[in-house]
Parts: sequence; C-alpha cells; structure tokens
Amino acid sequence: MNIKIKSNIQDYQVSFVDDHRGLLVQDCKDQNTFFLIDKNVFELYECASLPLDKSRYQVLDAVETNKTLDMAQQIILQLISAGFKRTHTLVAVGGGITQDLVCFISSILYRGVKWKFYPTTLLAQADSCIGSKSSINLKNNKNQVGTFYPPTEIIIDVGFLKTLERQEILSGVGEIIKVHFLDPAGRHQLLFDLYNDCMDDPQKLKELIHSSLLIKKDIIEQDEYDRDTRNIMNYGHTFGHALESATHYAVPHGIAVTMGLLIANKLSLKLGLLSAQEEEQMRAIILTHIKDQSFDITAQSEAYFEALKRDKKNVDSDIMCILTSGLGQMFKYKLQLDQDIKQEILHNLLLCGGE
Amino acid sequence: MNIKIKSNIQDYQVSFVDDHRGLLVQDCKDQNTFFLIDKNVFELYECASLPLDKSRYQVLDAVETNKTLDMAQQIILQLISAGFKRTHTLVAVGGGITQDLVCFISSILYRGVKWKFYPTTLLAQADSCIGSKSSINLKNNKNQVGTFYPPTEIIIDVGFLKTLERQEILSGVGEIIKVHFLDPAGRHQLLFDLYNDCMDDPQKLKELIHSSLLIKKDIIEQDEYDRDTRNIMNYGHTFGHALESATHYAVPHGIAVTMGLLIANKLSLKLGLLSAQEEEQMRAIILTHIKDQSFDITAQSEAYFEALKRDKKNVDSDIMCILTSGLGQMFKYKLQLDQDIKQEILHNLLLCGGE
Repeated sequence: MNIKIKSNIQDYQVSFVDDHRGLLVQDCKDQNTFFLIDKNVFELYECASLPLDKSRYQVLDAVETNKTLDMAQQIILQLISAGFKRTHTLVAVGGGITQDLVCFISSILYRGVKWKFYPTTLLAQADSCIGSKSSINLKNNKNQVGTFYPPTEIIIDVGFLKTLERQEILSGVGEIIKVHFLDPAGRHQLLFDLYNDCMDDPQKLKELIHSSLLIKKDIIEQDEYDRDTRNIMNYGHTFGHALESATHYAVPHGIAVTMGLLIANKLSLKLGLLSAQEEEQMRAIILTHIKDQSFDITAQSEAYFEALKRDKKNVDSDIMCILTSGLGQMFKYKLQLDQDIKQEILHNLLLCGGE
Repeated sequence: MNIKIKSNIQDYQVSFVDDHRGLLVQDCKDQNTFFLIDKNVFELYECASLPLDKSRYQVLDAVETNKTLDMAQQIILQLISAGFKRTHTLVAVGGGITQDLVCFISSILYRGVKWKFYPTTLLAQADSCIGSKSSINLKNNKNQVGTFYPPTEIIIDVGFLKTLERQEILSGVGEIIKVHFLDPAGRHQLLFDLYNDCMDDPQKLKELIHSSLLIKKDIIEQDEYDRDTRNIMNYGHTFGHALESATHYAVPHGIAVTMGLLIANKLSLKLGLLSAQEEEQMRAIILTHIKDQSFDITAQSEAYFEALKRDKKNVDSDIMCILTSGLGQMFKYKLQLDQDIKQEILHNLLLCGGE
C-alpha cells in the first residue's frame, strides 16, 4: 500500500503500518534522532517508556497559539543546546500543528535537516502529511509564514485514530470528501461506496485515507509550490476558513471545509456553472456528514464576511475561491461579493447548522 | 556582461548597470514593491528623496546583532500591516546583512514572495549576491537558521563602492582572491593580471567581480543546496571564521578568509598535499593583500581553537576544512587538531599580522 511522492526538494514515501510502536522504538534507539511529540499522544501512548533520553525529545502542547515563530525559535534553541547536528533527524509525532512546527523548523535549521512524520490525527493522515507545506502564525497573524519542505518518510498507522474524538474523525473525513469530489481523474466512486461505513470500520477508513493520498499525490506532484493547478485543493476552504474564523474555531477545520463545499456548490449552481443533478449528488453526502453540527452565525455574519474578505488569496475586493461544474471539475473563480451572493451564502450557513 | 543563473527554485539574472538610481526610481514607482534599505546607504545615497511612501520602506541598521529571527519577525509584521501581499516584491538595498534578512523573509513570508537585490558592498557584489543562501542568528547563535531562496534579479553598480572604506574593499577582494584560486576551470590568470590595479580602477574591479560571479555560477549551479561539490567555496573559511570569532569581528570577513587561505595552504604544504612552488605563487598575492593588517591573537589562541572546534561543519572532534593540492584543486579534508597542527596554525596567524 506504500506510496512514493515525487518532490522538487526530495522524493519521499508514505508507509502504511500496523505497529507504529515497534518503528518508534527503533527510531528512538538511533541516537541521531530527536523528537517533538504532541502532549496528548505522549500521554495516551505512553511515550515516557520509550527508550529515549530526556534531552532528545520535547513535548508540545499542540494548540494554535503555540504554532508561532516564537515557539519555533524556542524549540530550535532547545534542540541546539541538546546537541542536535545538521546530520540528525527530527521526528514529529502528532497532528497538523506538530507537523507544521517540525516541517518549518526542519526547513530553516542549519538551512535544512531531515524530518520524519508519524501523523496521529485523521486530518494529518488523510491530507496534510503530504504536500510539503508548513504554516506558522506570527503573533496573532494566522499562517502568514511557512515553507515547502517534505519529510523523508511518513508512517501511517490507523491505530492512532482510535483515541480521537468523534468530531476529529468527522473533520478528517471532511477533507476525504473534498479530495474525492475534486479528483480530476474522477476516482470519487470509492467515497460513495465506503462513506457510510468508514467511520466505524478502520479498514474502510484506511482505504479512503490511501485513496485520498493517491489523489492528492497526483495534484501536488504537478504543482508542488502551489502556483496554479494545486489551487483546486482549496475547494471549500475559502468559505470554510471564514467560518472557522467567525466562530473562533468552534467548528473544526474539516467540518468547516465540508460546509464550504456546500456553499461553493450552491454558488456554482446559482451562477449557472453546475447542474442541479450534480449539486444534488454531492449535497446528499455533505448534509449527512454535517447533520449533527450547530454553531452561532446570525450574530456573526459581519465577522464572517470580514474574514472572507481578509483571505490572503484575494486580489482587490473580490473573493478568490474554487467553484465547480461537476465532480472532478473545479476551477478558480473571482467572486463579486454583492448582496445577492451574501444572501445565498448566509442561507446555506443556516442549512449547515448555523443559528 | 549580464549573467543568467540557473536555480532549482527559479532562474535569475545579474545585471551590471552604471545608473542604479534610475532603476531604483523605476522600482519605487511600482506600487507593488516594498523596500528594506541599509541605513548608511539610505543616507549616503539620499533615498529619502526617492518617490516612495513611508509605508513602503523600512530602514535597517545593518549590524550583526540585528540579523536575527526576532528582527525578521519585526520586519514581516511591519510589511503585513503596510499591506504587503503575496504578489508583491521585496527589494533589498544594502550589503550581506540586508541580503540575509530580505532573502530569509522572502522565503518564508506567505511561503515565498519575490525579492530583488541591489548589493552595495563589494562582498555582496562579488560573492554573496548569488548562491541563494540566507543566514540568520538565533539570539546569540550565529547563522544557525537560513534558507535557499534566490532573488528574481540582482542589479550591480560598482558606483556604490566609492563610499566604502578601504577595509571593506580589501574584504571584498579577499573573496575575489579565494574564488579565483579555487576555480576548477582554472580561470585564475585574470586575478594575477588585474590584482595590483583593481583597488584603484573601478573598471578592473568590475571585471574581477564579473569573473568571480562566473566562477561561482558554475559551482552553485552544480550543487545549489551545498550537499557536496559546493563545499570548496569554504576554502579559507573554517580558519577565517574562527579568527573572526576570536577577535570579536575586529578582522573583516573577507580579510579573515584571505588569512584562512594562507593557513589552508600552509597546512596543505605541511601535509605533503601541495608543492612549495604553488604555495609560494599563491602566498605572494595573499601577503600583499593582508600586509597592513594587525590583530591580537597570542592572548586569544585558546578562543581561536575553541571556535575552530565549534564550526557547524565538524564531525566528532576533527576539523572539516578545505585543503588544496594547487590552483583549482581544492577538496574537503578531515584535519586532526594535534599540537603540531596547532603550532603551524598559530605560526601563520602571526605571519598574517597577529600579535
């Protein structure tokens, strides 16, 4: 099941395993490895009993407010004083925040050192672990700096997912839905076949993770630096990000993205770009996926549209988003945010559970 | 005279011009450019009268203690609040420190934005401006982080050099000597022909800058990420860096490197790697170049060898340095720092003006 990814920087591999513990122990025994481990994972998976000196690991409270340049600096200073050399490897064990910090640090420390990743969340396993990107906050400015710098290896064990909360699983499956909808090669059928069972059957979920990475692989290999064709991966994201921001991250990322898909599709329909039949086919799975969600939006609609306008991909006062003319047919679209469009967006936010 | 450089990230061009002012004015008129300008250059070249809003430039006190991650963050925050977008260009006007900050910032801001460089020192014009590297200090840890990220264009006007102090010119010519000595293609004759006049004749200096960049171009195009063959560019640097450190930067970089060349050559001679005749041929130019220098070393010899051992390129307790078997024949060498070798190094430091 392993997947090889081609990169302008350095090719790398995703390995699917059933026993991450054995591999972790092996990595720990190599004195040239240093670790950054998510605090929850450290406790849940008894990392204190790994054969690892205190000087070779740091435990991270993986919250958004720690995903900063200041924290990156603090971790690097500790690595240097612990004797980390340019020939050593930094290992990330955790989700997206741990990944972002380790990827960023590895890309700048000594102008680049090797890193390895054990993703422990579904979002990281099915989506963020490949693609080379890191995103770091500057004080309160979210994701304003970052780099492109892939790990040497990614180890996926779906065993890690059993300790996740339901919302985190739903969030990860949200990105799985997104990438299957947008696949230019049309591999969406697997999603329609496995969706209903995947959240209760780790083997089916593993199949969808694998399929998601294969789809993303094709896209990022074509445009690793996100200069053009990779932008379709932002399908659902423009509308989703604004929702995360307006609700102060009460709606988890992948769930907000799923709601963003609904909005992108409805706008595509309204603009005559998408047929009612295709919109309907996608809507069925989206509405099932977000049926138990609720969030405050009526009082936050101003904040929502403000966030939408602040998106870093915008040019002038228009909104740059990804719209669609059907499964596998996504494209960049410059949207004029007039009253009519705002109305349509708000209406759909209410449909998604907004109150 | 222009030079095109191939890069894994993005090809770029070095343009030799006689009127940087006209080009600067043109860049200023483009509202999508923002500037970081060295404080001395800003005053000497009356940059306050450029057609440039206050919000679009920052003036940098280009001292080593400002070449930090904290300063990079401060500059970025100011850029963001001034409305700098991912499609904009950051322009560096200054020497190596300004270059390091702008190169680093451009490589991480929005995961990479365009930058352009007007080098104003001889070190920057003849050496550092090409090669993609940035080096940033972490608190007191010198050059521990950095990136590879070339500008889109480099504008060289030797007119900038007329305001440099003699030591700065000597420092730049030091790197010019180094790169001509090491050129694997053997283009050292131009240095022997022009050396005596170049410091008083801008046209001859320009020829040597051009030649230095052509030599470096061949080396960096082969190994942009400094994984193997590019290491010969460190010829003279291991011994030079330690001298800079032990004298608290009283000896300018390129002058320390020139002294480092002498030490590397003498060690090569002692180890039977280099013939006496070739050592002599190179020594003539080196000793002429450093004849007026003086620095304290007898009391600092401990500090010197400590700094030598701390070099980030070392493996175990040996010193990784570049030695030579003749002009154009440099190679990596693992040097055991025993009493005999230490004696030889100290002896040559005294020959270089050490007291």
